[in-house]
This record gives sequence, C-alpha cells and structure tokens, in this order.
Amino acid sequence: MTPADILLANRLADAAGEAIRPFFRSGFTHEAKEDSSPVTEADRAAEAAIRRILDAECPRDGIIGEEYGEKAGTSGRTWVIDPIDGTVSFMAGRPIFGSLLALLEENWPVLGVIDQCINRERWVGATGYPTTLNGSAVKTRTCRSLSDATLATSGPQYFTQHDGEHFMALAAKTAHKRMLFGGDCYNYALLASGHIDIVVEAGLKLHDFAALVPVIIGSGGMMSDWSGEPLHADSSGHVIAVGDPARLEDVLEAVQCDH
Amino acid sequence: MTPADILLANRLADAAGEAIRPFFRSGFTHEAKEDSSPVTEADRAAEAAIRRILDAECPRDGIIGEEYGEKAGTSGRTWVIDPIDGTVSFMAGRPIFGSLLALLEENWPVLGVIDQCINRERWVGATGYPTTLNGSAVKTRTCRSLSDATLATSGPQYFTQHDGEHFMALAAKTAHKRMLFGGDCYNYALLASGHIDIVVEAGLKLHDFAALVPVIIGSGGMMSDWSGEPLHADSSGHVIAVGDPARLEDVLEAVQCDH
Repeated sequence: MTPADILLANRLADAAGEAIRPFFRSGFTHEAKEDSSPVTEADRAAEAAIRRILDAECPRDGIIGEEYGEKAGTSGRTWVIDPIDGTVSFMAGRPIFGSLLALLEENWPVLGVIDQCINRERWVGATGYPTTLNGSAVKTRTCRSLSDATLATSGPQYFTQHDGEHFMALAAKTAHKRMLFGGDCYNYALLASGHIDIVVEAGLKLHDFAALVPVIIGSGGMMSDWSGEPLHADSSGHVIAVGDPARLEDVLEAVQCDH
Repeated sequence: MTPADILLANRLADAAGEAIRPFFRSGFTHEAKEDSSPVTEADRAAEAAIRRILDAECPRDGIIGEEYGEKAGTSGRTWVIDPIDGTVSFMAGRPIFGSLLALLEENWPVLGVIDQCINRERWVGATGYPTTLNGSAVKTRTCRSLSDATLATSGPQYFTQHDGEHFMALAAKTAHKRMLFGGDCYNYALLASGHIDIVVEAGLKLHDFAALVPVIIGSGGMMSDWSGEPLHADSSGHVIAVGDPARLEDVLEAVQCDH
C-alpha cells in the first residue's frame, strides 16, 4: 500500500458519491436480495462506478463487492467494496449510511474508507497513518469504565436470540440511557472521532467490516471478534470495536458471559 | 395562529440552532436527569435562547419546555419546546436529532417545527398550510399494504415489555428487512417527506410529539395514540404516525392485537 493507493481510494469514494447522490430522497428502484435484504439501483450504480476505475487502473488486483461478487486477482491485493452500507437508512433518506472501501494485502486490510456522500464526510484509515476525517486527524476518546460507555449497534433484528442475550448482558453494564440503535458503519466512524465508545454487532460480512479496521486502528481504537481474535476474511461476523483499548477485556467478558 | 407566528417560530428555530451548533461534536458538559436520561449544556442553551425571545415578544403566551418547565400564560396560547429531541444522537455526533417547537391554541397544536440545525433542514407544519421542508412543500407517500411499509422507532429500550410485544406484532407484518431503529423526531420528518411509512413509539411526552402533529397532518399523514384517539396534552405518549391515512386502521389492529 502506497500513498498512491490512498489517493486512488479517495477517487473511488468520489465516484461512489457521484453515483449515489442523485438517488438520495429521489426516485430509485429497489428489490429484495436472496436474504431478502433490500438493494437499490444506487447500490449497483456506485459499485459499478468503483469497479470501472479498478478494472481500468488496477487490472491485476482482485475485487470483492457486495453487489457484483468476486473477481480473482494476481497481485496479492484485493479491493473490498460495500457501495452503500446502511441501504435501509439510505432508502429512508437518513444521511448516515456510508460507502465502504478496503484494500487487503495478504488478506489484511491496510486501507479503509468510510464515506458519507450527502454530508460529505470521509474517514480514511491506512496502516502507518493517523485516521483522518476530511483530511484532519481524529482520535478515539478515553473511556474509564463500561458504566460510562456509550454503546451503539445497528438494530436488535440483526442478532440471533442467543447473540442478542449476550449483547444485552453487555448493554446492561454500559450507560444504557445513552445506548444508540441504527447507524451501520457511521457508528464506527463516530467511534473513530471520539463520540461513541463501543460498537458491537453480529452477522457482518467481510465487506461490512474490512474498511472499518484501518479506520479504527489508526484513530487509537481496537477491533476484534467476540472471542477477542483479530478480524479476518473468515471471521464469523461477530464484531467489537472499542475506542479505548483498555475497555476491550471488559467488553469481551460481558459478551462472553453465560449469565 | 397567524403568518407572523410562523415567522416567529422560524426565528425561534434559528436561535436554537445557533445555540446548539457550537457544541456539536465538541466539548459539552452533560448530566443525568431524574429519569437518568442525559441532558447537555446545548439542550439548556437552546431552550434558554428560545425562551428569551418568547419572554420578550410574547409575554402573555404560556411556555412548556423540556428543560426549564412550565410558565403559565394568559393568552390561551402555549409554546411547547424540546430544544434537542434525540439528545443521545446529538451527544454521539449524529446529525439526525432535532429541535421541536409547537404552538398550542386551546390545547391543540396549530404550528409545529422540526429543525435539524447541522444539516440545516427545517420542516414546518401549520394548520391550513402545506408542510414545507426548507420552504418547499412535502407530501407523505402512498403505502398499499403493511407488508410493503417501512416502519421506524427510536429504540427497543423505550418500550415496556408489554408495549414491545405489541410493537413487534406490528413489525412482523411490515417490511421488517427495512425496519429502522434510532432517529427520534427525524423519523417523523422523513415520514412527512415520503421516505418512511409508519412510526410507532411509546413513552413520548407532550414536548416530544406536539410539534410533530401539524407537520404530519400538513403533509397528508395522520397521527393518533395506540387506541386511534387524537393526541392531546394528556395522551399516554403511545404515538402512531402514518404517511398514508388508509393504513392507520391496519396499524391499530396490529398493535392492539393480543396475539
């Protein structure tokens, strides 16, 4: 990963935003995917715009995209694309969805972008660089105890009953009057900027979490799965992000607890 | 209620936004209220700014404010203020909280404002006028059946277990893969603009729902409590908003169902 890759990732995010903005709060077609989650023509237009650039400029890199699947590469590098993370928010006109872009080298995300194209907010994380929001470095905040922590998750409907019980065991130990639902990738971006302390989710796919890892690490936070293992391409999708690494053990203990 | 009141309400919302913006994603103090929900210095600064204008210009009008309580009036008119609806979202840096202003005449909300001061979006509803977003008329959308409806609510933690079961009975009949959590007053604004079909909540106070009523009615929607009765100052806080009035009966039937 070179500075040129960071510039390229910015251009990819620009292209996604240009594809998405005309559809926001406007007429767009949508349909249900196999898992019955919705996809819109904005999702597809954004991923197509990104892939056009990658196909032309990085033909040897692999691509894994939420909407158009996998293209094998020969360079050892893979771009991972979620053109709209938070499609449901997008469809409802909430400006808190995001386009996610990650670059994997040897299966590890070395570069990640979370782009909110309506408010024009872009978080960029890259190994060896501080995470930035629109070019200015951001930092996670200190969190002295779980009881003072703001916890966020996208929605209870994304947990199995079993996972939901473990999540609620954690939630009960946090500042639950400040608990936040909804938000998708935007929660992780706000964690990177020091406004949220913990995000815990289940059922995420590689395209949902790959871009988050460099953004969180570069802002001083940590990510793992619910066992405390680093996230990787075959992770179960049980994701934890903490702004203050000192709280990771507390979160793990709470979500692993068998009541 | 006269056109001058609409202009005044806009100036009140301007004042709230000016008070709030410097605190957004910035340092602000916060504390827990009696019910342990959070309040910040931004909530208080915004309500104080609004009350200063009302005290000077409408000394005979009553005021009911979330943070500074009730002031009796002699004009038969009462301003109802929630300086930040969605304080938790505000504290987490999400630009989807809102300032709520309502004018009651004979205890009925004849004027309502939902103002998002970060994205500078303002919905204004007033009896006899179409609801506007930044000056342009908005309309709710048609919804042919519950199974095609996008349902939103701020979070499961705001329901008692009993209410939550009734909510889930409704949710199961809607397009639950498009169900939205989080959002507070912003959900109602997006319903007025035709992007969400149903919002159902419990535990709202007068300052949470008074401003919503004129906004929803003026955009073609309907509001009621969970029994189908119009909302009033002594309502239980069980609130339904539908964009398409033809769906109100279906929603009532679903939330009233005893499984």
